[in-house]
Amino acid sequence: MTIDIIGRRIRLGLVGGGPGSIIGETHRIAARLDGQYEVVACALTSDAVRSREAGIALGIVAERAYGSWQEMLQAEAQRPDRMDVVAVMTPNDSHYDICMQALDRGFHIICDKPLAHGLAAARDIARKVAETHAEFCVTYCYTGYPMVRQARDMVAAGELGEIRQVHLQYIQGYFAHHDLPSGWRTEGKRGGESLVLMDIGTHAFHLGGFVTGLDVTQICADLGSAIPGRQVDDYVGALTHYGNGARGSLYVTNAAAGSEHGLSFRIHGDAGGLEWHQEEPNRLIHRRKDGFEQIITRRLGPATSQGAQQSTRIAIGHPEGYFEAFANLYTEFAKRVANRLAGRDVSGEATLYPGVIDGVKGLAFVAAAVQSANAGRWTDVAI
Amino acid sequence: MTIDIIGRRIRLGLVGGGPGSIIGETHRIAARLDGQYEVVACALTSDAVRSREAGIALGIVAERAYGSWQEMLQAEAQRPDRMDVVAVMTPNDSHYDICMQALDRGFHIICDKPLAHGLAAARDIARKVAETHAEFCVTYCYTGYPMVRQARDMVAAGELGEIRQVHLQYIQGYFAHHDLPSGWRTEGKRGGESLVLMDIGTHAFHLGGFVTGLDVTQICADLGSAIPGRQVDDYVGALTHYGNGARGSLYVTNAAAGSEHGLSFRIHGDAGGLEWHQEEPNRLIHRRKDGFEQIITRRLGPATSQGAQQSTRIAIGHPEGYFEAFANLYTEFAKRVANRLAGRDVSGEATLYPGVIDGVKGLAFVAAAVQSANAGRWTDVAI
Amino acid sequence: MTIDIIGRRIRLGLVGGGPGSIIGETHRIAARLDGQYEVVACALTSDAVRSREAGIALGIVAERAYGSWQEMLQAEAQRPDRMDVVAVMTPNDSHYDICMQALDRGFHIICDKPLAHGLAAARDIARKVAETHAEFCVTYCYTGYPMVRQARDMVAAGELGEIRQVHLQYIQGYFAHHDLPSGWRTEGKRGGESLVLMDIGTHAFHLGGFVTGLDVTQICADLGSAIPGRQVDDYVGALTHYGNGARGSLYVTNAAAGSEHGLSFRIHGDAGGLEWHQEEPNRLIHRRKDGFEQIITRRLGPATSQGAQQSTRIAIGHPEGYFEAFANLYTEFAKRVANRLAGRDVSGEATLYPGVIDGVKGLAFVAAAVQSANAGRWTDVAI
Amino acid sequence: MTIDIIGRRIRLGLVGGGPGSIIGETHRIAARLDGQYEVVACALTSDAVRSREAGIALGIVAERAYGSWQEMLQAEAQRPDRMDVVAVMTPNDSHYDICMQALDRGFHIICDKPLAHGLAAARDIARKVAETHAEFCVTYCYTGYPMVRQARDMVAAGELGEIRQVHLQYIQGYFAHHDLPSGWRTEGKRGGESLVLMDIGTHAFHLGGFVTGLDVTQICADLGSAIPGRQVDDYVGALTHYGNGARGSLYVTNAAAGSEHGLSFRIHGDAGGLEWHQEEPNRLIHRRKDGFEQIITRRLGPATSQGAQQSTRIAIGHPEGYFEAFANLYTEFAKRVANRLAGRDVSGEATLYPGVIDGVKGLAFVAAAVQSANAGRWTDVAI
Repeated sequence: MTIDIIGRRIRLGLVGGGPGSIIGETHRIAARLDGQYEVVACALTSDAVRSREAGIALGIVAERAYGSWQEMLQAEAQRPDRMDVVAVMTPNDSHYDICMQALDRGFHIICDKPLAHGLAAARDIARKVAETHAEFCVTYCYTGYPMVRQARDMVAAGELGEIRQVHLQYIQGYFAHHDLPSGWRTEGKRGGESLVLMDIGTHAFHLGGFVTGLDVTQICADLGSAIPGRQVDDYVGALTHYGNGARGSLYVTNAAAGSEHGLSFRIHGDAGGLEWHQEEPNRLIHRRKDGFEQIITRRLGPATSQGAQQSTRIAIGHPEGYFEAFANLYTEFAKRVANRLAGRDVSGEATLYPGVIDGVKGLAFVAAAVQSANAGRWTDVAI
Repeated sequence: MTIDIIGRRIRLGLVGGGPGSIIGETHRIAARLDGQYEVVACALTSDAVRSREAGIALGIVAERAYGSWQEMLQAEAQRPDRMDVVAVMTPNDSHYDICMQALDRGFHIICDKPLAHGLAAARDIARKVAETHAEFCVTYCYTGYPMVRQARDMVAAGELGEIRQVHLQYIQGYFAHHDLPSGWRTEGKRGGESLVLMDIGTHAFHLGGFVTGLDVTQICADLGSAIPGRQVDDYVGALTHYGNGARGSLYVTNAAAGSEHGLSFRIHGDAGGLEWHQEEPNRLIHRRKDGFEQIITRRLGPATSQGAQQSTRIAIGHPEGYFEAFANLYTEFAKRVANRLAGRDVSGEATLYPGVIDGVKGLAFVAAAVQSANAGRWTDVAI
Repeated sequence: MTIDIIGRRIRLGLVGGGPGSIIGETHRIAARLDGQYEVVACALTSDAVRSREAGIALGIVAERAYGSWQEMLQAEAQRPDRMDVVAVMTPNDSHYDICMQALDRGFHIICDKPLAHGLAAARDIARKVAETHAEFCVTYCYTGYPMVRQARDMVAAGELGEIRQVHLQYIQGYFAHHDLPSGWRTEGKRGGESLVLMDIGTHAFHLGGFVTGLDVTQICADLGSAIPGRQVDDYVGALTHYGNGARGSLYVTNAAAGSEHGLSFRIHGDAGGLEWHQEEPNRLIHRRKDGFEQIITRRLGPATSQGAQQSTRIAIGHPEGYFEAFANLYTEFAKRVANRLAGRDVSGEATLYPGVIDGVKGLAFVAAAVQSANAGRWTDVAI
Repeated sequence: MTIDIIGRRIRLGLVGGGPGSIIGETHRIAARLDGQYEVVACALTSDAVRSREAGIALGIVAERAYGSWQEMLQAEAQRPDRMDVVAVMTPNDSHYDICMQALDRGFHIICDKPLAHGLAAARDIARKVAETHAEFCVTYCYTGYPMVRQARDMVAAGELGEIRQVHLQYIQGYFAHHDLPSGWRTEGKRGGESLVLMDIGTHAFHLGGFVTGLDVTQICADLGSAIPGRQVDDYVGALTHYGNGARGSLYVTNAAAGSEHGLSFRIHGDAGGLEWHQEEPNRLIHRRKDGFEQIITRRLGPATSQGAQQSTRIAIGHPEGYFEAFANLYTEFAKRVANRLAGRDVSGEATLYPGVIDGVKGLAFVAAAVQSANAGRWTDVAI
C-alpha cells in the first residue's frame, strides 16, 4: 500500500518497549503485520548502554540503535533517510516531552494511551499537533477491531435509532492480588492522578464515544480501592449522561480476581441494541427491534460495513485478534503518512484510528471522574 | 413431603391472577409442580362476577370461588377445612390491605414482590407478621434457582474470600416501545414511587443481598426515563457501598430495545469471582484464583452445595427453568407451613425463600434510591 | 383445558416409577404441571406390598394404590370412575404385555420410549392400537421443546430449502465409569438388543425425523463398547442416507467421561441451517443463507411458529426446561383424550407428540443399526 | 530469535500466492509477524510478466522477482545470498515438481497442504526429504493454535486417561451455493481424487492425530455430493477405529449453507474430555472427571502447557487468531532452519509444526477414505 504511494515502506523509530516489555513487542508486531513499516531507529530503554544493545538485538543498524530518545530525535532529524514516524511506548509522564520535541522536529507520532499524564499536558500536545500539522495516532487499540467499527457504522447509519443507553465495562484481574506488581504504574504519580482511570478506564471511555459518536457531558463517579490497604486506586464506577439525553454506566477495575480482560460495551437505541466483548472480538451481538438476536461476524465481502471491511484481512470463521486490531491503527496511519509524504492534502479525510483529540478527551474524562469522586456529586466533563 | 408431615397437601387460596394474567398462571404452576398444594379457594379478579366464573373455570368448587378477597378471607376463616395459605398476586398498592387482614385472620402468606407500595406499609406488614407469628414468603423468585443458591453457599463457605465487588444488572426490553402497555403499573402511582425500581429493581437488589449476604449501606442513584417523554421512569443506575467496604454497581431498565430478560450478577472476592445470568440459569461461572474458569452446573448429587441440591429435581444436563425456581419457593414454604400445622417449632430454622424482612429491605432500597436520585448525592440505606 | 371439554381433569393411572425412580417423578411432574391430570391409580413397583405403600405415600386412595399392574388394569376396567389413561414407565421388556392388556381393556396409553424391547413387539403394539382406536403417546420427550418444534415448522415451511445434511449427536457420560451402575438396563437383554441404541439412540433418531420430516432409508453403523471389557455396548456411530438424498451422521454414547447430556442436532438445507442443543433448549441457532446467525428464542407471541407457540407458557427470557418439554406431551395428550371422551372425531388431526408409529420407527432403526454393525455394511431401514 | 542464532533473518522465497490470493497474503503475514523472515525472492503466478510485476509490487528487488518457479530455483541456487527456504502455495498438482526440484537444490521447504495430489507423490517427496536431509513443514495451520497444543500436551501427560473417542468435524459453507466458484479446485482433478477430502478433510484428520497422538487404522467412509448435480464431492462422513481401540467419527463438508468455518474436535478419555472450536480458538473446554467444566484459556505464564506457552505472545484475554497460529509454524520453522544453518544437529529434536510424514498421512487418509466409500466397507489406512 505505502509502496504504491511512495515506493517504499514508512520509516519507523521506536521510543520505549525494551526487553521484557509486552507493549513494545505488541507495537512491533503491529508495525510488521501488514508490511507497511520498516523499523529504522530506536531508543528502547532509559539506560543508554542497554538501549543500544537491545536495538542491535532487534536487528537495527548500530548507528541508529540510540542510547536515548533525545539522541534519536536529534540524530534522525539530520538524516536524509530520516525516520517518518516516532512510536512512543514509554511511561505516561514521559509522553509530553517526547511528543513535544518530536513534533518540533517534524515527525509524525504514534503515541500510547493515555496521551499524557494530565489534561493540561494533553491540551498542549494537541495545540502543538495543530501548529505543526503533524499526523498523530493514540493507540486506543480496541477500536481497531472490525466488529467495533461495524457497531460504529451501524449507529451512524441509524440502524439502532437514537441511542438511549450506553453501558461500558472493563473488568480485569491483573491487580487483584494484594501484592501489586512493581513498575512505574504503581510508583507515586508517574501514571497520573488515578491508576485505574489512566491505565484502562480511558480505553472503556474511548470505546463508548467511538461507537456511539456521543460525548459524555456529565459524570458521577466513585473511585477508590476495591481491595483495601493499597495506595493506588483499582476501581471506578460511574453514572453518565450524554449530550443527547442518553444515560449510561461505566465500571472499570483491575482488581477483579479471576477475570481475564473484560472490556465490553452494551448499547441500546430506540430500534435495538448491540453488545460486544473484547474476549470474543469477531462477533457482534445485534438485538433487533423484533426481539431476535443476530450475530454479526467479521468477514470479507460486502455483508459488513465499510469500517469493518477495511479492517478485515481474511474470510469468515478465521479469527483475527488483538494484534490485528492494533495493526489496523498502524496500517491506517501508514497510509495517512504516506499520503502526506506524497504531498497529498488529506486534511479533509476522516480517520478511523484515534487522534490527538481523542487523547485529550480521555484525560478530560479522567479529570472529571476524579473531581466527581472527590466531591461525591455530578460533574461536567469539559474537553 | 407435606403428606409425610400432615397427611395431606397444603390448602391454598389465591388472590389475583385472573384470566390473562401471566403471573397468576406462574403461581399456579409453581403450586402444582411438586404436588404440595391443593388450590381450594380463590378471588381472582376485582369484578365479583368474573372472579367467580374464573375460579370455577379453574376447577375450584363454586362456593369457594369467591367474588372478592374480602369475602374469601372472611368465609375461609370460618371453615373447618379452611385454607392454610393465601397467595397474593395483585397490584402493589393492594398488598397492604390484603396482607394485614389475612394476617389478622391467622393465614400464612405468599406475597408477590414488592411487598407493598411503600416502605412504611412494608414495615407495618413486617410488624404484623412478627405479632401474628405467621409464615411469610415474598416471591423474589430468581433466588429460587439452584445455581443462585450454589453461589450463596460458596460465598458463605468463604470460597471467594472477602467480597470486594458486587455488580447487578437487569436489562429488559419490555417497556422499550414508546407506547407503554396499559395496566396498573403505568397508571399513576399504583405501583409505587418508581415503576422500574419497584417492578424489577427490587429483584436485582434482592439477588445481590441473597448471594453475598451483604447489605448495601450507601447508594448513589440516577433514576429517570431513558426513553424521553414518558411519565414513568424506566431506568436506574446506581453506585453502591456495602457494609464490609465492598463496592458495586447496579443498573436496571425495562427500556432496552431488543433485550430479553437480562438479570445477572457478577461478584468478585479476594479469591475469585462468580457470574450468573438468569437466561442460562443452570450454569454458574466460577472464575478461580488461578485464572481458570470453572462452569458449575445444576445437577443431582453431592457435587454441588446443600442449597443447590435441595432445589434440584433432575440430573445434570436436563435443564430446569423459571417455573422450577418459582416452585422451589412454594415447595419450601409448604414444608415450613406443614411443620407449623404439625405444631413443630421452626422459628430457629433459617429459610432459603425470601421472607418479610427481605420485602422491607426492597422497599428501603427503593426509598433510598429515589432520595439519592432527587438529591444527586449519596444516601444511606436504612431498613 | 380438559375442564372446558369434559368438565374435569383426565384420570391417570401409573405403572412403574416407584420410590427412587427419576423417570417416575418426571412423569408425575409432567402430569401435574399444567393441571390437566388427576392421578387416581397406580402400581408403582413389582413388589406388591411396596407398591401399595408407595401409592398411598403419593396421596392415592388406598383402594387404588394397587399391588401390580395386572391388578390395576383389571380393577380399573370395572370402575365407573375408571382411569382414562395408563402411563407406563417400566423396564423395556415389560412394555409389551402392559400395553397389549391395557389396550384390550380400552385404556389410552402414554408409554416410555423405546416402545418395546424389539421391533416385532413394537409392530404388534401398533397393530393393536389401530384395532382398538386407542390414543397413544411415546415419550420421546425432547421433541416437546418449543425450539425443536420451531425447527420442525421452519423446515416444513421451506425456510431452509431442501434438507441436505442431518447431523445428530447424543454424547452423555452417564456410563463413563468402568463400573456400570446395576439395574435392568445392564442386566442381560432386558433393555433389548443394544443398551446404547435403545436407551438414548432412539431419542436422537426420533429427533432427526421429527425436525426434518425425513426418514432414514439406509444406515451404516459401528456399534460397540468405547470403554473396553464391558458386556454392554456404549457407543454407536452411524452414517445415514435419507429418502430425499440427504446425508447424515449420528453418534451416540453414554460413555463420554465428563459429558453432561449432549443431545443436539445440526441440519443444513439449500437455504441455511439450524442447530440446537438440549442443554440450552430455549435457543435455536439459525444460520441464514446470507451468512448471519440468528438466534431464535422461545417466547410468547406470534414471532415464533405455531408449534413453538403452543408449547410455550411464559415470556421471552424466562427459561423453560425439561419438565415443561415433557409436560407438553402430557398436556397435548390430555387434550386429545378429552376430545375422544367428549365423543369428538379427532382422527384427522395431526399430533405433535410422538405416536405409536414413531415408536415402531425407533425399533426399526435399532434393528437396522445392529444388523449393519454386525455385517460391516450399509443396511436398509424398514419400518 | 534467528538473529541470536545466525545474526540475520531467514531468507524466504515464495512460489505462488499472487495478486488476489488469500492464502498468499496469509503466508506473507505469517512470515512477517514475528520478524524472523525476510522475503527475498518470489515467483508469484504462472504468467511470467505478471509474476515479475507482482513481485516488484511486493517490494522484492527486480532481479529476484522471477517469472517462474523454475527460474527462481535455478537462479537462487547460484547466489551467494541465496534464499534459505522456499514456501510453496500453488495448486495441489504442482507441489510435487516444485518440492522435488527445490529439494534437489538444497532448499528447505514450507509447503501448503495437502502435500501432493496423490499418495504416491507424497511418499516420493518424503523419501527425497529423507535423502536430502532438508527441513520440511506442511502448513496444517490449525495445529498452530496454542489451545490445540494445550490439548495435545494434556493428552500426552495422561490427564484424560486412555483416549476412547475422537470426534472431528469441519462444517463449512464455502461451496454451499449451487454454482461453484471457478478455479483449480473445481477443474478436473487438479486438486486430487476428492475435493472435500483434499481441501479440508486433511485438516480435520491431521488435527485428530496431532491432539491424540493416535493413528486411524480403519475407516468406513461415505463420500459424495450433499448438493446434487455437481461434479465434485462436497461431503464426507466417516467412522474410524484407532490403534488403541478408540472409536471415532469425522464429518467434513464445504456445502453446509450458512456455516462459517466449523473445524472442531471433541475427544473423551477415561478421565475426561476436551472440546475445541476453531472459531473460538483461545478457549479449550475441559470436561473433568468430576463433571465440572473447566475453561482453559490461552495466556502467558506457566498455567498452561509447554506447547501452549511457546505458541503464545500476549497475556490472557487478548485474543490471538488465525494469523498467529499460522505464524507459529513459520516461526518455529525459522528457528529450526537457523539452527541448521548454524551447523547444529537438530535431528533428535521433535517439532510441533507438521512435517513431511504428516503430509503423507493426510494423503493415506484420502486414499483409504475414497477406497472405503467406493467399496461401501471398512478399509485399512496404510501410510
